[in-house]
Amino acid sequence: MLEAVERQIEQFVKSLNEKDIQRAIAKIPAGKRLRAKLMLEIAGTSPSVIKSAAIVEMIHAASLLHDDVIDDAYTRRGVASINAIYGNKSAIMIGDILYSKAFYELVDIDRFVAKVISNAVVQLSIGERKDVYMGEKFNSSRDDYITMIYQKTAALIEAAAESAAILAGKNREIYRVYGKNLGIAFQMIDDILDVISDSKTLGKPALNDYKEGKTTLPYIYLYEVLSENEKQKLLAMHKKELKPQEQAWILEQMKKHNIIQKCKDEALALVNKAVELMQRAGEKGLEQIAIKMVDRSF
Amino acid sequence: MLEAVERQIEQFVKSLNEKDIQRAIAKIPAGKRLRAKLMLEIAGTSPSVIKSAAIVEMIHAASLLHDDVIDDAYTRRGVASINAIYGNKSAIMIGDILYSKAFYELVDIDRFVAKVISNAVVQLSIGERKDVYMGEKFNSSRDDYITMIYQKTAALIEAAAESAAILAGKNREIYRVYGKNLGIAFQMIDDILDVISDSKTLGKPALNDYKEGKTTLPYIYLYEVLSENEKQKLLAMHKKELKPQEQAWILEQMKKHNIIQKCKDEALALVNKAVELMQRAGEKGLEQIAIKMVDRSF
Repeated sequence: MLEAVERQIEQFVKSLNEKDIQRAIAKIPAGKRLRAKLMLEIAGTSPSVIKSAAIVEMIHAASLLHDDVIDDAYTRRGVASINAIYGNKSAIMIGDILYSKAFYELVDIDRFVAKVISNAVVQLSIGERKDVYMGEKFNSSRDDYITMIYQKTAALIEAAAESAAILAGKNREIYRVYGKNLGIAFQMIDDILDVISDSKTLGKPALNDYKEGKTTLPYIYLYEVLSENEKQKLLAMHKKELKPQEQAWILEQMKKHNIIQKCKDEALALVNKAVELMQRAGEKGLEQIAIKMVDRSF
Repeated sequence: MLEAVERQIEQFVKSLNEKDIQRAIAKIPAGKRLRAKLMLEIAGTSPSVIKSAAIVEMIHAASLLHDDVIDDAYTRRGVASINAIYGNKSAIMIGDILYSKAFYELVDIDRFVAKVISNAVVQLSIGERKDVYMGEKFNSSRDDYITMIYQKTAALIEAAAESAAILAGKNREIYRVYGKNLGIAFQMIDDILDVISDSKTLGKPALNDYKEGKTTLPYIYLYEVLSENEKQKLLAMHKKELKPQEQAWILEQMKKHNIIQKCKDEALALVNKAVELMQRAGEKGLEQIAIKMVDRSF
């Protein structure tokens, strides 16, 4: 039924009555549509659910367009990003068009849903800015990291699940927490993969986050256990192009201190909580989505 | 009573609970607040009018932040623009935060108002993109120019006036047309000033639009009356750094063919229609806003 969401997005875009904008938007890769999948699984496929899912996916696409400009990212999932193809300015403008059209359509949806989704967009805008500013120096605070990835990534997944629950007349709090846990775990896993994957699998250089200044969870935990001398060594590599022996040293230290397992366990704990919530709610499909998210990654 | 709108904007921004975002937004110049002025004049100063006016001004501010990035504009009204001070990325991110917060607050306002304002944001995003793409080659179509400035500039002024009328229980169509005419005239006048002002008054080089590729109304009308040879000469100067003698030639041709007067007359005709509508509605204040807009410019 994701096909219905794709058709709804196409119809929203078509109703702008601008052929070349339609063509440009058609070239944006659809991605996994995780948010839409969750919504349909929670709330079925009534027209208002399909519309809301299309709106959330348009918002997600818009945020990725702006993120790639802000992060100077020229690939996404191994293929050229929109800003790489059309330039940064086009990516900003297409992002603004998608955002505003999504909000325009959101006004016709249930008011509580509109409030939940628009709040998530505020959070993700703030989160993206934090991600950039936190990258200016080494961040050793786990709390700041968790808050930032919650805002940047989890807030919209949380809002998708909560919105769908509202539309379906289900207990919104349970689904909200499910979405929040899943969203935080999702970003943690993404950040772990940057450390443990090679560049071929990832479509970008491994350890790229640290080079970009992003102190993700593995680096925060590694920093905590290193000696004073080693801490200084790690800090000296922050936001720099890493030599092969420097990369090797980081990976070696992570292995020695069992950092990746610690991070995986933390992500898994969140996923398990999400799974338990859905077990109790008798939501087999949502359980599976959570389990698959982890299985596919590790 | 514009002070109440300023305080409302501050309060919206403060409720984001992000001190440094608050500081960054506080540094954005307030501008003339034309849209808020119109709204208060139409609908008074009830809390929902103040909130709606604050939302519209936040949207306008967000759009200017993105426009300055897209247009590589490093000054605005003679002072350094936000992207010039904080960089393009900050301007994009602060713009996204302002947009999303404005939409979040818009959900609590009357649904018709939310629809009118969010539609205007779609139009202005499309208009900004057209402005950029139309600048790639010489545009000789007056209709395309009018459509573009309507979307880029007039749509939000139109929406401000129409929204205020809805909130005040006045005839929304009359105020919508007033706002639309005022908005189109406003952009026409801005484009005329780029031709007739010197760089000191304007805070940017005169004839800057043509250098940037923007074929505004004076150039469209000039092109229409030039001989075939002169047309080619004008086209050859498009999107180029102009030599003083080239600038002089353009200004001379404009004078010879009475182009500026023709453009002024067209803007004035729109303003007069707006004034007449307000005379019939007994809206002295709105009449004056329209008249002053022209008087201050020419």
